[in-house]
Amino acid sequence: MPERIKDRNYLAQLIRERQSVLCIGLDTDPLKLPQSLKGDVLAFNKAIIEATHGQCVAYKVNFAFYESAGAAGWEILQKTIESIPSTHLIIADAKRGDIGNTSEMYARAVYDTLGCDAITVSPYMGSDSVKPFYREGKWVIVLALTSNTGSNDFQQLDLANGGKLYEEVMKVSSSWGSADNTMYVIGATHPDELIRIRDAYPDHFFLVPGVGAQGGDIDAICNVGINKWGGLLINASRSILYAGDGDDFAEKAREEVMRMNEVMGKYLPN
Amino acid sequence: MPERIKDRNYLAQLIRERQSVLCIGLDTDPLKLPQSLKGDVLAFNKAIIEATHGQCVAYKVNFAFYESAGAAGWEILQKTIESIPSTHLIIADAKRGDIGNTSEMYARAVYDTLGCDAITVSPYMGSDSVKPFYREGKWVIVLALTSNTGSNDFQQLDLANGGKLYEEVMKVSSSWGSADNTMYVIGATHPDELIRIRDAYPDHFFLVPGVGAQGGDIDAICNVGINKWGGLLINASRSILYAGDGDDFAEKAREEVMRMNEVMGKYLPN
Repeated sequence: MPERIKDRNYLAQLIRERQSVLCIGLDTDPLKLPQSLKGDVLAFNKAIIEATHGQCVAYKVNFAFYESAGAAGWEILQKTIESIPSTHLIIADAKRGDIGNTSEMYARAVYDTLGCDAITVSPYMGSDSVKPFYREGKWVIVLALTSNTGSNDFQQLDLANGGKLYEEVMKVSSSWGSADNTMYVIGATHPDELIRIRDAYPDHFFLVPGVGAQGGDIDAICNVGINKWGGLLINASRSILYAGDGDDFAEKAREEVMRMNEVMGKYLPN
Repeated sequence: MPERIKDRNYLAQLIRERQSVLCIGLDTDPLKLPQSLKGDVLAFNKAIIEATHGQCVAYKVNFAFYESAGAAGWEILQKTIESIPSTHLIIADAKRGDIGNTSEMYARAVYDTLGCDAITVSPYMGSDSVKPFYREGKWVIVLALTSNTGSNDFQQLDLANGGKLYEEVMKVSSSWGSADNTMYVIGATHPDELIRIRDAYPDHFFLVPGVGAQGGDIDAICNVGINKWGGLLINASRSILYAGDGDDFAEKAREEVMRMNEVMGKYLPN
């Protein structure tokens, strides 16, 4: 169990100490592991965590990659989470959201059964679908402007009363919690929007996927997104996990992490 | 494995034969079972399915209620699905949706690992988050206008170019598939909107939650929603599962099903 609540000040401290806003996404695909591991996802994850935990502040477990193997995959998910040090934010990347009694069950799964500190949620069903995820000491990470091309379909629609859908989502959902328990997903593929978003939400943390394999630029994101707490968790998954494809995969992953941290370090307060 | 693809005509045939558009939601809460079952969710589900399968056309498994128990819950989810006859549509009520490679993993979980015929998806992340769920012979059920009060927060927002967000979601997503592989979630708590929606989408099936415990009116929904294929799957969960709280729970569930079917039968083609 974590020794203390991982609040905003705690995150800020971790970021200062490690000079990194890196979140490593454990989107582990059994078909992409080095041959010698024979598809052992847990062994792979443990080696990645062992090699990188000193240089990142969060791990994000992508539920889909574990669920694809059913109950056995959930077993691996659970053991992966247990192997993450308590000195890191553990994010359930699950994009859940349903009517109240159902969201409450998802909250139990993620917080009580798995022991995560945070969860990504989809806002489409509104307040009563998200509020059950608020709990003392936990973070709710609301999808706002995502990194994929489909973010153009609805998130960027212009509303009759002005502004775009994702802006309304941020405005409304910011009243459900505070900068101490709410983050937003803002894709790294939208650096121009990030300028305006940071201006409107100076105190919030943003979870930023979309660097690495998806093409977002760490320099640009840090330049406009970092605030006095750090304020960003920049996620990379594939570019770290599969930095090498041989038995030195963990070492290669660590090298990729160091490379990313070098960029981030330029923008972080000492 | 199902003997044939559960396409629109097949669903229409089931509905005619059973004179029902009922979908039973297996949102089974271990804390609400009759004492004699000692929290055995699988035994409960099997008894419910055994007692009701002749009088409904679909079962909807609500993933949250199983995930809350972790890997063990997924085991029960899997065995529950295996115990549903192949003559029913099996809906994964999972409300998934993520970037393409992740949605593809969720699709594998739901179709390949669990053997479901359909999945509920959240549209917020747009086209590339939903398209991986389209597969030959499978149904994608897009959240449009949900039954909860939070459906007012974003789904009903007015857009600058006219119409509401949920209408735009339906319009855009209707081009991703057809009435043969796409359904929409329309909450029973919106009967007036359902009139307009049926008018705009005469051929689609709608999955309608929100009767029973959530207060929607079956008569009103059938009156305006049924089309020549049936065109509705009206879901009830708690009102059926917990119709009785003693050892005769399955019999009580069946009685509640018969009561609902009596209402539906008035509106269905023979």
